Amino acid sequence: MNNDFKDILLNRKSVKVYDEDVKISHEEMLEMLDETVTAPSAVNLQPWRFVVAESKEAKDAILEISTNVNQVSSSAAVVVFFGDLQPQANLNKIYDEALATGKMPKEVYDRQVGFIKPFYDGFSEQWMREVVKIDTSLAAMQFMLVVREHGYDTNAMTGYEADKMAEKMGLDPKRYVPVMMISVGKAKEAGYDSVRMPAKDITEFK
Amino acid sequence: MNNDFKDILLNRKSVKVYDEDVKISHEEMLEMLDETVTAPSAVNLQPWRFVVAESKEAKDAILEISTNVNQVSSSAAVVVFFGDLQPQANLNKIYDEALATGKMPKEVYDRQVGFIKPFYDGFSEQWMREVVKIDTSLAAMQFMLVVREHGYDTNAMTGYEADKMAEKMGLDPKRYVPVMMISVGKAKEAGYDSVRMPAKDITEFK
Repeated sequence: MNNDFKDILLNRKSVKVYDEDVKISHEEMLEMLDETVTAPSAVNLQPWRFVVAESKEAKDAILEISTNVNQVSSSAAVVVFFGDLQPQANLNKIYDEALATGKMPKEVYDRQVGFIKPFYDGFSEQWMREVVKIDTSLAAMQFMLVVREHGYDTNAMTGYEADKMAEKMGLDPKRYVPVMMISVGKAKEAGYDSVRMPAKDITEFK
Repeated sequence: MNNDFKDILLNRKSVKVYDEDVKISHEEMLEMLDETVTAPSAVNLQPWRFVVAESKEAKDAILEISTNVNQVSSSAAVVVFFGDLQPQANLNKIYDEALATGKMPKEVYDRQVGFIKPFYDGFSEQWMREVVKIDTSLAAMQFMLVVREHGYDTNAMTGYEADKMAEKMGLDPKRYVPVMMISVGKAKEAGYDSVRMPAKDITEFK
């Protein structure tokens, strides 16, 4: 386990070729995902959902709609990050637990629960897509770092036929929208360095 | 400086009240933003743009369109994360540097530069909003962690009149879309614990 924040953050590179012999147990994958979901989300609705494609069948299904052959086939798994377009369906589940465990005072619970459902119900489909894509991307970034904590590497990819991904992964395409897919495994070839625009060129102080 | 990955990740909480005496220098803010932009983005177009609202005037402008009074007024700064809806305008700047510094082979450069501009030009406005919101959210998550490396805390917020934010911050609202705003400062009151749905309940293995 690597606990060196600077190394995890600054030496993350997109890895395209993985050691095909390295598998990741379900236990370790869930451990990584439990660290991942410590990400924040709008009103804590946690719209992220994960499909871990690790079988040949699941990877082949992805390759029918993506050209990222190396990353998909050589990785231990491809984790597809979906956003739930009905996140308010989990409102009570989440907030009831917060109340029951003393993490949320009753008056905050009452105010929030009364406010959030009608607020979310009023979103246009388009706005909802944006909201859940933002939240799910926060989790996706944490995942890329947590995976490095565990000694693996990633490549985040958005090059696939987005309208077919949910069905390929066995989810309801009306409810779940793909946000990105992230290959995970032990790097066989190092990732490339890439350039960044310096912060001073893209920041204004007001 | 805190370099303990697990502490940075797992003890991040949304802080709503900050020590008003603590300011952050432009130098340190840019240092944090330079670590932030090591996040990946689709075809490395880096659509994130930052406005650091630190003056009373800038904070007041935010408070005209947001009710997050404590976070905005007591923090050292509120960093507004915008997405650039014309990220392909920086294609040559980014890729020419990658070529010149030997980080990208000539044949990859030629293929990518020839492909990306027409590809991005073909996006609907809506799809472009989703693409740049995803990328910018990856940077936003890194920022929340980097800030903790530096000993500060954050609160990510999306509760504001989104259609007015660019203008309030002096940016072209046709080109720049707000993704979230993040308050930064030294915590005066600790953030609350919050609950998460366990990974096993929201993950499928295929």
